[in-house]
Order: sequence, then C-alpha cells, then structure tokens
Amino acid sequence: MKLTKVQNQEIKDQQSQQNTTKRVISPELEKILYEAIPALDHGFIRVIDYMGDDSSIVQSARVSYGKGTKKVSSDSGLIKYLMRHWHSTPFEMCEIKYHVKLPIFIARQWIRHRTANVNEYSARYSILDKEFYLPNQKNLAAQSIANRQGRGDVIQGDQAKEVLELLKNDAERTYSNYETMLNQKFDGSTIDKNKRGLARELARMNLTLNTYTQWYWKTDLLNLMNFLRLRADHHAQYEIRVYADIMLDTLKRWVPITYDAFMDYRVGGTEVSAKGKIVLKKIINGENVLMEDSGLSKREWNELMEAFNLKNKII
Amino acid sequence: MKLTKVQNQEIKDQQSQQNTTKRVISPELEKILYEAIPALDHGFIRVIDYMGDDSSIVQSARVSYGKGTKKVSSDSGLIKYLMRHWHSTPFEMCEIKYHVKLPIFIARQWIRHRTANVNEYSARYSILDKEFYLPNQKNLAAQSIANRQGRGDVIQGDQAKEVLELLKNDAERTYSNYETMLNQKFDGSTIDKNKRGLARELARMNLTLNTYTQWYWKTDLLNLMNFLRLRADHHAQYEIRVYADIMLDTLKRWVPITYDAFMDYRVGGTEVSAKGKIVLKKIINGENVLMEDSGLSKREWNELMEAFNLKNKII
Amino acid sequence: MKLTKVQNQEIKDQQSQQNTTKRVISPELEKILYEAIPALDHGFIRVIDYMGDDSSIVQSARVSYGKGTKKVSSDSGLIKYLMRHWHSTPFEMCEIKYHVKLPIFIARQWIRHRTANVNEYSARYSILDKEFYLPNQKNLAAQSIANRQGRGDVIQGDQAKEVLELLKNDAERTYSNYETMLNQKFDGSTIDKNKRGLARELARMNLTLNTYTQWYWKTDLLNLMNFLRLRADHHAQYEIRVYADIMLDTLKRWVPITYDAFMDYRVGGTEVSAKGKIVLKKIINGENVLMEDSGLSKREWNELMEAFNLKNKII
Amino acid sequence: MKLTKVQNQEIKDQQSQQNTTKRVISPELEKILYEAIPALDHGFIRVIDYMGDDSSIVQSARVSYGKGTKKVSSDSGLIKYLMRHWHSTPFEMCEIKYHVKLPIFIARQWIRHRTANVNEYSARYSILDKEFYLPNQKNLAAQSIANRQGRGDVIQGDQAKEVLELLKNDAERTYSNYETMLNQKFDGSTIDKNKRGLARELARMNLTLNTYTQWYWKTDLLNLMNFLRLRADHHAQYEIRVYADIMLDTLKRWVPITYDAFMDYRVGGTEVSAKGKIVLKKIINGENVLMEDSGLSKREWNELMEAFNLKNKII
Repeated sequence: MKLTKVQNQEIKDQQSQQNTTKRVISPELEKILYEAIPALDHGFIRVIDYMGDDSSIVQSARVSYGKGTKKVSSDSGLIKYLMRHWHSTPFEMCEIKYHVKLPIFIARQWIRHRTANVNEYSARYSILDKEFYLPNQKNLAAQSIANRQGRGDVIQGDQAKEVLELLKNDAERTYSNYETMLNQKFDGSTIDKNKRGLARELARMNLTLNTYTQWYWKTDLLNLMNFLRLRADHHAQYEIRVYADIMLDTLKRWVPITYDAFMDYRVGGTEVSAKGKIVLKKIINGENVLMEDSGLSKREWNELMEAFNLKNKII
Repeated sequence: MKLTKVQNQEIKDQQSQQNTTKRVISPELEKILYEAIPALDHGFIRVIDYMGDDSSIVQSARVSYGKGTKKVSSDSGLIKYLMRHWHSTPFEMCEIKYHVKLPIFIARQWIRHRTANVNEYSARYSILDKEFYLPNQKNLAAQSIANRQGRGDVIQGDQAKEVLELLKNDAERTYSNYETMLNQKFDGSTIDKNKRGLARELARMNLTLNTYTQWYWKTDLLNLMNFLRLRADHHAQYEIRVYADIMLDTLKRWVPITYDAFMDYRVGGTEVSAKGKIVLKKIINGENVLMEDSGLSKREWNELMEAFNLKNKII
Repeated sequence: MKLTKVQNQEIKDQQSQQNTTKRVISPELEKILYEAIPALDHGFIRVIDYMGDDSSIVQSARVSYGKGTKKVSSDSGLIKYLMRHWHSTPFEMCEIKYHVKLPIFIARQWIRHRTANVNEYSARYSILDKEFYLPNQKNLAAQSIANRQGRGDVIQGDQAKEVLELLKNDAERTYSNYETMLNQKFDGSTIDKNKRGLARELARMNLTLNTYTQWYWKTDLLNLMNFLRLRADHHAQYEIRVYADIMLDTLKRWVPITYDAFMDYRVGGTEVSAKGKIVLKKIINGENVLMEDSGLSKREWNELMEAFNLKNKII
Repeated sequence: MKLTKVQNQEIKDQQSQQNTTKRVISPELEKILYEAIPALDHGFIRVIDYMGDDSSIVQSARVSYGKGTKKVSSDSGLIKYLMRHWHSTPFEMCEIKYHVKLPIFIARQWIRHRTANVNEYSARYSILDKEFYLPNQKNLAAQSIANRQGRGDVIQGDQAKEVLELLKNDAERTYSNYETMLNQKFDGSTIDKNKRGLARELARMNLTLNTYTQWYWKTDLLNLMNFLRLRADHHAQYEIRVYADIMLDTLKRWVPITYDAFMDYRVGGTEVSAKGKIVLKKIINGENVLMEDSGLSKREWNELMEAFNLKNKII
C-alpha cells in the first residue's frame, strides 16, 4: 500500500483533531482512528467514525428491560446474556464507518451484505486508480477437488509464474487501453488533444475485476458482527478474510466486552442440529451410533465429529 | 413533564462529560445533548448520541464522485446538488440517536418507519409508568367532515369537559386495576403479601393507548428526513407533529446546511404531476383551462391552485 | 371467532376462484387459501397469497452455484445444505402474505420484525371493532419469580375470577366511552344528532391494549422462519405463540422440504458456545468438569446439561 | 442473445405449465411469463414469478382505511390517491421476480438498490459464460464536457473502430487466459490433464467488467418503481436504461392502473422547490423575475424553465 502525499496529509490533518464532546468515546479505537491499515497488496481499511461503545449497549438494554435488568449486576454479564439469547436490538445502537480500498471482485462479495450504507468511488465520474490486486505466490491456490467452492494446494513453480504473469500483463494491458479509450492518462493528462475520449462510464468496462476501488462503508454493530461471522470464517475467500481479520481487531478495540462475547458465542461456537443432538447424547451415554442410522450426511457427520474432537469417529 | 431525581442526576452526569475525540463534532447539537426537551404533557425527546455532521456528507460524496466534484466548489452547493438530485447515499453517512417518551398510540404510528433501530421499554419485564396523555382542551378536535382522516373544529364547553373527564377516569381506573392484577403498585411495593400477581406480560393489556412508553430510536440522516417530511407535515396527527417539530430543531442544530436544503427541496417544495404540468403551462401561456378537461380530480386541481397561489381558480 | 356475513361471503368468493397460471403452485397451501383459521378468542390468520414453493429455492440456488450444484443430486439434499450453511438468499425467493386479526399488545411485539410489509387497519380512518382479548382461565399465569420475563403457575379461584372480571369490565367500559366520545356506535349509527364526535385519531387513545386490530402482513420465507424461530419458541409469550404455531402449519403445507430442514437445524437445534464445547468434549472424554471452572454461568451450565440430557449434572 | 438448446427447452417446459390456482392472476403478464426478452447484445430479462395485481393494492388499502375508503369509489381513483399522497405500503403488497443476464459493470449499479432479493451466478462455484458486452457503434458516446457523469456526441470513424477493437480483443484475451489459468475451457473440458487449475474464485479476477453475469432478482412493486424512476430516467446510463425500459413494459402488463399513476405522478412529474415555487408564482402573475434574485443556481433555473416550457427564459 502506497498513499499519495495528499492522502497522507489528509490523514495527518484528521488525526490531529482534538475536539471536546459530551458523547461517550472508545479510547482504544481513537488511537487508530483514520489510520490506513494495509490489506492485500494495495488495499487498506480505515476507521473513519464511530458512535457508542459497550456502555451504549448496556444503556439501551436497561431502557428495554427497565428494572428487569437489575439482577444482572455487571455490564459484561448483561452483554453476554444479550448475545446468548439473540437479543439483537441493543447491538444495533452502535455504529461504525470504514473507508476501504479493495479489489472489485471482493467488493462484489462484500456488497451482498445489504444492511449497510455505502458510497463507492464512481467510475462514471472519475478515472479509477492504476492499481490491481496480484496474489502473493503463496496464496495461489488450485481449485479444490473435494469442494466446488474452495481452494486446494498451492500452485508451484512454472505454472505459478505463468499465472502471475498472465494476471499482471492482462491487468496492465487492459488498463493501458482504458487510458487510450479515455484519451487520458491515470494522472489526468490528455493523450491526444485532437481526439475526444470515450465516456468514462463506458471505458471502465475494459478493466479487469482485480482493479481496486474504494468506498465508505457504514453499518451498525449487529450487522458488522453478522458480516464478520461469515467473512472471518475459514469458508470465506482468503482475500475478503484479510479485511475481516483487520476489522475483527477494530471490533476488539471499539467494544472489548462485546468482542469477547462474540468470540465465545458466535465465532467459536457450533450449532448442533436436532439429529446431531441425538448422536451426541448417545455418544455421551456410551452407546454405539453409526453414521448410517443417524440421518446425517457423511459431511455433516464428519463436521460434528470434528467439532467435538471425536477424530476416531471421522469416516 | 416531570423527571425523577434519579433521571435528573443521570442527565447531569451525562452532560458533565468532557471527552476528547478525533471525530468531527456538531457544536450546536453538543449544547443540548442529553437534555430532556418536553413534548405533550408527560413526554420528552433527548438527543443521546450522533455521528457525523454536514462535512461527513460532503466527504463521502467526494469519495463517490472523486475528481468529479471539484467543480462544485462549496460544501453548501454540493449538499444542495445532492438533495435536489436525490443522491441519497451520502446522507446515510450520518447517524443520530434519540431517547423518546411518548404515548403508545403515537408509538404505533412512529414504529411504521422501519429503517431505524429501536429499544423500547418492555412491559413484559417491568411495570409501566403511571402517566397517560390527556390532550389540552384546545387540541380536542372534532372529526373532520370533509376528510375521513383529519380533524375539524375544536370541541367546546360541556362536551369538551366530558371527553377530558372520560379520558382521565378511564386511564386512571385501568391503571389502578393494572396494579391490582399485578398485586403491585407502580412504585414497586406489593399490595397483598398473600397473593401472587398476574404476569406483567398479561396485566399490561388492561392499559389504555394513551399510556406513556419510552424508547431509544436511532436512524440515519436520510431516514430521519423521510420521517420528518411525513410527520412534520400538516397532514400528520398533531400529537406526532409535536415530536417532529422538536426533531426538526435538532436537525437544524446538527446539520445546518442540510437542514436548509431539506426545507427548500422537500418540506417547502411541491410535486407537480404530468397532468398538472400541462395545466400550469397553459396558465403561464395565458390559455384558458378547465378542471373538467385537465384530467385532474377536484381535490388535485384545488391543491395545485393552492400551491401556486391561484386562489381565484379554486373550485 | 365470529365472522360477519359479509366476511364469510368474501372468503367464499375468493375461494371459488379457479384461475389458470403458468406459475408454480403449492397444492396443500391452495387447499386452505383465504380460510380464516381461529386464533385466541376473536383472532384469526388467513393465507391471502403466496409466491414460489420448494422448487423455487432450488431453482435460484442452482442459478447461484451453476454447475456447482450438480453433485447435490436431490432437491431435499440441496435445501438441507443451504439451511445448514446459512446460505440464506435462496429462501428469500419465496413470499407469503397473511391477513391477521390480533390484540394490539401482540401486534406491538409482532411489528418489531421489520423486514416485512404491513397494512394495518387504521383507527384514524375507521372505528375499531368491539372485540377484545380475554384470556382463557387456564392461561392466566402468575408472574414468574425465577424469570422476570416469564410466567409462573396459573392463577386460580377467586383471584382468577377477579382478574377476568376486571379485564372484561375495563375493556367494555373504555369501549363504550370510546363510542360516546365518537358520538357513534361501533355499527356506525350516530348517538346524538346534535353533537359532533371527537376525531377518531384522538378517541382511540381510550381503548385498552387487548382491543383487536388487523393487518395484512407479507414477508419472504427467510424472514418468516426468523419470525417463527423466535415466536414459536417456548420463551415467546403464549399469545403470540398461538399465531406462530398456526403459521408453522402453513409453512409445512407451503414448503414441506424446507419445513423439515427448518425443524432439524433451527427449531430443534442447539447452539453450543466455545466454552460449552470445551465442557462437552471433557464429558465425552469421561473427564470431570465443574461449573465453577467452566466459565459458564449457572444458567448457561444448566441449559447445556438440559440440552444434552445430562440431568444429573444440573445444579 | 442466443439461448442454448437446454435453456430453450427449459423455457418451453415452464411455459407449458397449466396450473390451477385460487390466487389472483395478471393475464397480460402470464402471456410473457418465462420468456427471454433480449437486452443489449447478449443479455435478457425474464419474468419468472409474480404475486398480486392492481386489485391486491386496493384490497390492502381498504383494510388499512377500512370504511374510510368507501368514498373513493373506483379502484383506479384509489390507486391514484395512494400514489399522489405517497401512501406507499399498499404497493409493497405485490412482488415480482426477474431472471436477468447483464454485464458486470451494470450489475454493480443495479445492486445498489438494496431492498431486493438476489441470487447471482457464482464464479466461485462455476465458470462464467464466454460472453461480453460490446456496445453498438451508435452508442459509443464521448465523455460529455458539460456534465462529468454524462455522455456527449457519438464517436465516429477510425476512433470508433479502434475502441471496439480494443474492447473486443481485451475481453477475448482475458477470457482465454482465464481458461488457461483454470486449465479448463468454458465448455468444461480440461486443457492439460497433467496440470491443476487455479481456483475459480481467483481466476475470475482476470475477467473484464463487460463480462456477462446473471441473477434472479426479486422485489416488491414499490421498490420496483423506485428502481425504474431512477434507471428509466434519461440521467441513467444507457446500458441500464435498456433493462429498465423492458421492465417498464412488464410493469404495464402486470399492474396497468398502477403503471398509469406511476407515469403521471412520478415519471412525468416534476418537483418544484420552495424557491422555484416563488419564481413560478411571479411568472404566473406576470411579474419580472431574474435568475440572480431567485436563489436558484443557473442549472436549477434552466431545468425549471425547461420543465415548464419557458424556453425563452433559459440562460
């Protein structure tokens, strides 16, 4: 990630603000506010603004339950209770806003989370930056054979070189032709004064999906956790997980108590189906139980055994 | 509106906070933060938290349009442009949270605005306050004859007295019976130690719809304006308009530039239908035009004439 | 539940329709379309319209995963896979619309599910029906002592009689005074020709929360299941569970394969937290484990033991 | 647009369904159900399913307003009334589902409409079709000079040829390299049996933004109209307008009364700001009014004059 002089100055200016407010603040998050945290080869995430902290969740829960919350003495106990029982609305009382730079094919996954507010850089109005994602060789995974969606072993040697070469050349060539069509360089300079450039909204279609875009993305704490639960998971594509992992760290800084409850009940937890429960009960009772009789598919069975460390029962 | 000692102390404590933040602040809104602004006889509105200000809208719009926004030199010009062209997403980048105390029948209207986060005081957990809305005599309107939804003249004299008497007595009696069923007074004291109280989630059904409830209500600036456009309008029920008018004032403090654009383009503006445009064009041209030939209903016609001050054309 | 002649005729007319369509249909749901299924003492639920069936979920999933779904040979296998892995968007491809008559205090819970479309009977425009919910004596639960939100034992004898009396009298008296204020009977007849009635939008505030209202409520299949998961649960208030249970039955008729997966993975399933998993693993391994060392609260511990039938470990 | 044999057969099968239903149907929409209506060079739109018709809007409005709607005698009058007064919820009671094939850069605009359900073909699971959008020469517009977002004159002659050549070659080359990286042809055949292919979720990043994707897209009637209002507008990019125009036609078939009201009040209508109203009032009164004194920007002024056919006042 390389920021321009102008960007660096803007960040410095934002960080030098010293405003006085009666609102609650999150001290650990303030420390990294506006900072551009690198992600992938040219991307970044910045926390731009936030509203509320752990105490805001507690405050609104206590409004809901009134005197009913007196028994739960500590804030931490109350937040754990809310998380465990899917009392989700108090978590909607906090809000966060990120500035993210990311490749377009990742942006297309990300945008599927609809309960968020977005302002994306518009390639109808402006020329996109000359930056595209090229995977690190160690992330150049082959298609998984077992799993149609997943990644298998890392591609090595000459084939790896070839892939990287293709990606690089195609991105560079299509970008260069984008400039030709626009009759304008990425820095804004005109190429041929006697020519008209193609409309930006058309020329952009020539770019490859690893071109970087950027946006402001704002969501509430509940929906942030929904996002992280899916995208920081090992089923998620590596390239979006890089962003989700950084955001997990910002979550920890922002609302540390909620973060702990989230890790315990959501990220580290497991769902056991009705049929899975019957299997586990039998195992606990020392009864014999076979996959064939369980009503579980082979994959389901194995995931259950994996989750409860019953490795010898994996088929 | 009468606040308890505990509530007054809580507000004082919140207002005495002096936190330092790198976030943008809205100085005029900070001045009234946490303050309980009275509404109706026992209700209030408090601004509890906010995120962003006018500059946040500009900032995210400039991310979207990139170099494309350079031509619009001033922040105010850009915000007006966005409002006029329904470029709504930049307005979603600001967020505000209110604490509202309001009668249940108004809460039922309010909640229809779905794009908001809500934590309401739960009468399953706790006993509702012994407070109910009784209209001021000057707001005791008769049913409109012309308009099935509206209010007509104010009811006077003995009939007014009777109505107020009925409302007061019924609210008091049902509340008192609510206590009897709960076997508990509103202050939490038990009535008869030898009896069990009815479940709170059941007993509450005996309360009348003018009983006060309260909630935390959080929304983004765009949806706040959608709310205000409908609820600060003269078609809205008086009792919700009282709240909307207070919120309009908080909007002005929070984002003064946006407020101006909102008043110009939304609140003070008029929509003219395709058929209405034909009528206006003819009038401008000095042509004769009759309601019968216009395709407009009588009501539509009159509203158009009213909007453009053509009082002599009202039928 | 008693329907008026007009309502009965309307239902008959709707049910006698025999339209031909190229759309998919759900034969079992067609059988009960428009039928008013009784709920509580005066309420009902009617399925008014629907879109899609189990095959619609499969169809859209196959568009998403393309050739990637070939391996999952059966529709039932694919739907189970989607449910288990929280691939939620295909379930959004089906839609259902209900007509519901329900007490206002239940409507206030129901409306908290925001991802739905609603048209409620408006008491600003029209007079509400003279019908209010009075619990059956066997549902007249006392407040739970253990659980601030729950119900305890059923109230018996004289106290039960008194409660029912109070509820009945208060509802009748407030309704009768509502009529007096409106200067109109529930059947529309004017009471005193020389008087003006109070505006309907005001008079309604005198009604108690057990008065019945009605609405059209439309949602997609995913959000219907989210609703049912919470509201058909034993933590839900009995009065809303009555409706949810009826809706569960309509779900079974509409999309039987999805219904089975829903019961297995959502309703009958259990979430085990990271800490809970450690406890279960130890128990499976025959290790000793104490609540005190587990990081679980007493309540959490007991719920876990309950879920896996470890009754002797309940504390 | 060229459909495969399999696709053509599937459409035929769907269209040959003759199901009997008690639901309302929309006869004109049934006629084109499932049909692939061509859009751009390789895209299409198909109506896959729908729920409700004009009468459903009326039905739910009459539930809301109860006896209050008796005065509006005709369905058409009621629908016009609802549209004019922004009573939006009855329009949410109808739902429609489309199957759309469209270029990725258009899909990225489209998806910004969040209140819809989407299942997109996943390039993580499957190989994308070898089809990319190449504009017709007559749509090869130059960048507008006046408007940063818009299109200017059409590019002609050699430059046009060059642009089309570049777009075609780059799309073909990047697609061919996509196949090389996947070690698989678009028809599924393996290229080199001794090699592993790159993971599909990675290889896709090499494709250009004019590659076609497809999705199922479902929304309610209100949000469909919101979409069409923006995307069938002349400010919208030509390539999305092609789709919106087709959808406008499906709207007309589906709910003809609503379509008329939509064209009159939304599409053909104009919003006049508070300041604009003052200007128009003066013009109607024969008073002199200058842009400089109006508080309107030059662009606003001209748009107002244009809207009301005051061409001689355009500056």
